[in-house]
Amino acid sequence: MPVEVLQGSVHARTQVFAADTIDAMMIRMPDGAEPHLDFVETAINVRYAETDRMGIVYYSNYLVWFEVGRVAWCKAKGFHYAEMESRDGRFLMVAEASCRYKAPAHFEDDLVVRTALAKATDRVIRYRYEVCRRNTGQLLATGQSAHVVTDQNYRPSRLPDRYRGYFSLPPRRVPVTIGD
Amino acid sequence: MPVEVLQGSVHARTQVFAADTIDAMMIRMPDGAEPHLDFVETAINVRYAETDRMGIVYYSNYLVWFEVGRVAWCKAKGFHYAEMESRDGRFLMVAEASCRYKAPAHFEDDLVVRTALAKATDRVIRYRYEVCRRNTGQLLATGQSAHVVTDQNYRPSRLPDRYRGYFSLPPRRVPVTIGD
Amino acid sequence: MPVEVLQGSVHARTQVFAADTIDAMMIRMPDGAEPHLDFVETAINVRYAETDRMGIVYYSNYLVWFEVGRVAWCKAKGFHYAEMESRDGRFLMVAEASCRYKAPAHFEDDLVVRTALAKATDRVIRYRYEVCRRNTGQLLATGQSAHVVTDQNYRPSRLPDRYRGYFSLPPRRVPVTIGD
Amino acid sequence: MPVEVLQGSVHARTQVFAADTIDAMMIRMPDGAEPHLDFVETAINVRYAETDRMGIVYYSNYLVWFEVGRVAWCKAKGFHYAEMESRDGRFLMVAEASCRYKAPAHFEDDLVVRTALAKATDRVIRYRYEVCRRNTGQLLATGQSAHVVTDQNYRPSRLPDRYRGYFSLPPRRVPVTIGD
Repeated sequence: MPVEVLQGSVHARTQVFAADTIDAMMIRMPDGAEPHLDFVETAINVRYAETDRMGIVYYSNYLVWFEVGRVAWCKAKGFHYAEMESRDGRFLMVAEASCRYKAPAHFEDDLVVRTALAKATDRVIRYRYEVCRRNTGQLLATGQSAHVVTDQNYRPSRLPDRYRGYFSLPPRRVPVTIGD
Repeated sequence: MPVEVLQGSVHARTQVFAADTIDAMMIRMPDGAEPHLDFVETAINVRYAETDRMGIVYYSNYLVWFEVGRVAWCKAKGFHYAEMESRDGRFLMVAEASCRYKAPAHFEDDLVVRTALAKATDRVIRYRYEVCRRNTGQLLATGQSAHVVTDQNYRPSRLPDRYRGYFSLPPRRVPVTIGD
Repeated sequence: MPVEVLQGSVHARTQVFAADTIDAMMIRMPDGAEPHLDFVETAINVRYAETDRMGIVYYSNYLVWFEVGRVAWCKAKGFHYAEMESRDGRFLMVAEASCRYKAPAHFEDDLVVRTALAKATDRVIRYRYEVCRRNTGQLLATGQSAHVVTDQNYRPSRLPDRYRGYFSLPPRRVPVTIGD
Repeated sequence: MPVEVLQGSVHARTQVFAADTIDAMMIRMPDGAEPHLDFVETAINVRYAETDRMGIVYYSNYLVWFEVGRVAWCKAKGFHYAEMESRDGRFLMVAEASCRYKAPAHFEDDLVVRTALAKATDRVIRYRYEVCRRNTGQLLATGQSAHVVTDQNYRPSRLPDRYRGYFSLPPRRVPVTIGD
């Protein structure tokens, strides 16, 4: 596994993880319907900066909007993602992202990004996204992303216990000592 | 099919195509090995602007680099993508894009984006990408994208004949009239 | 004056204007106090994508926020900037932009962009901006921009009459014919 | 002076400096000719992502190019800016940036960013920029930026001695002890 350490760096880090490790952690998401997804909605008004010379939104910006959706999802669940990083030293590092573009978005369009947790363990989190027009509900794009929980050195880690509930994970079983 | 027309607009356009149309045009790419891909390489030096507060390259920028790779691929094949748009009025509209992130990239890293044509008809083009470190060859990310050929109103169209060779498509069979 | 025409282009355009023309049109804005500026406020929540490896917002993003502010200013005045472009074929092309950074912004910060018209003729528009924290009002940055009104070929033009009021310009004097 | 401390944060920092401090440090740059500027050139090929729906490069991207120019300038002088941050814990925090746009740039244009040190003390660095077409030399934009040297907590600091030469500063006078 390749390791890259910047000695004495203010941004010191060990390079995260071999591709094989991620691949092993990733569980393929089924293509079928997911009727029970619980979407959190957040509004986006398309910025001029997000358009390209085709006159439509440049394709990489949907991934930025997915991130805006994730942050809104965290808030809706009751925590700030910034705090998970700053206070708890845990990062949701992106391991996979994809988007299917169904119809273009234009400058000043009022959109909604819908974000749902698709699957979670305390090591890997998967989200799904939909981008729709706010007034008509027209679906413009769908997407998904997978994230590996890492520590601040970007090594695979686990969700802190206090976040398990936010991701619909049961409390961790604490070993019980019987007798004395 | 949803239609959106900006009357009298300098950016007038008819909204492109229903999701179903794209889905019907898309042929799933097999996951297996593609040993014969012919990659075109282009150099990227990571910009400060491309990093995020994790200290690594923000994930949507890989899609920007894939686009840089496509433009380099076109040049390597013998044409300018800008001309295909400006002179021939054909656009390669993105219908799908995805990326798998295997190891992070940092500010000032010297990278190589490797771009290959994975599959082409005169209506749908598929590319594959690899992002590597230039000096070690370490693979940082892989990706793919699918593009629908459209006209300048963003309606599905076909590659102009003069571009077929660039995409390894045989010349179009011209109907022959026998006798007179 | 350099002229660049893409013949037969779907994005055909004549290159706009010589530097001298702009310089001649620009009237230096006085540095002194402008107590009567009427600011329109719009909310910004800092995106992860907008941060850099210093952990703060990358400096070019303030110019994106200024544009978000301009669009909000237009809405507050009663029109959509997208329509000025699409329906009236007039563009506010940026000729100058500047920003002074007083304190950094971080991921998830709730900010306010305050946008005011600083000076307008029917040919040149100047805006001023302030970026503040929403809760404390702390001033993080100030900026300004100057825009030249152009037609859709990006040649200097004039504001359409119906927009004059939005920019606090008096109605145009219509020549009156006396007698018959 | 407003202070913002994220306790126990992996991105802990004290908010940098009051606006007054920066203002006091900034010395206005004269508008006159600077014939002796020593420009370092770096090539830019305009990315599709950098265009907007006007069909030209979106204005904030020039600030990204200025940063690319600064990094190239550092390399030309003999050091890596990434190292100044990582190894020496010094940052060149942007305090001011401005750009004048004289003619637009388009997708696939071959440009040159010319970067010169305009003024330097061991606390404040000023750069000037020009963006030109590579083949014709046509000037598209000019700009400048001012940077405050900070430590890793983003408090005003000084250039490390070993960087003084790169910025054309004389070696620091070391106090000499005479006699014993």
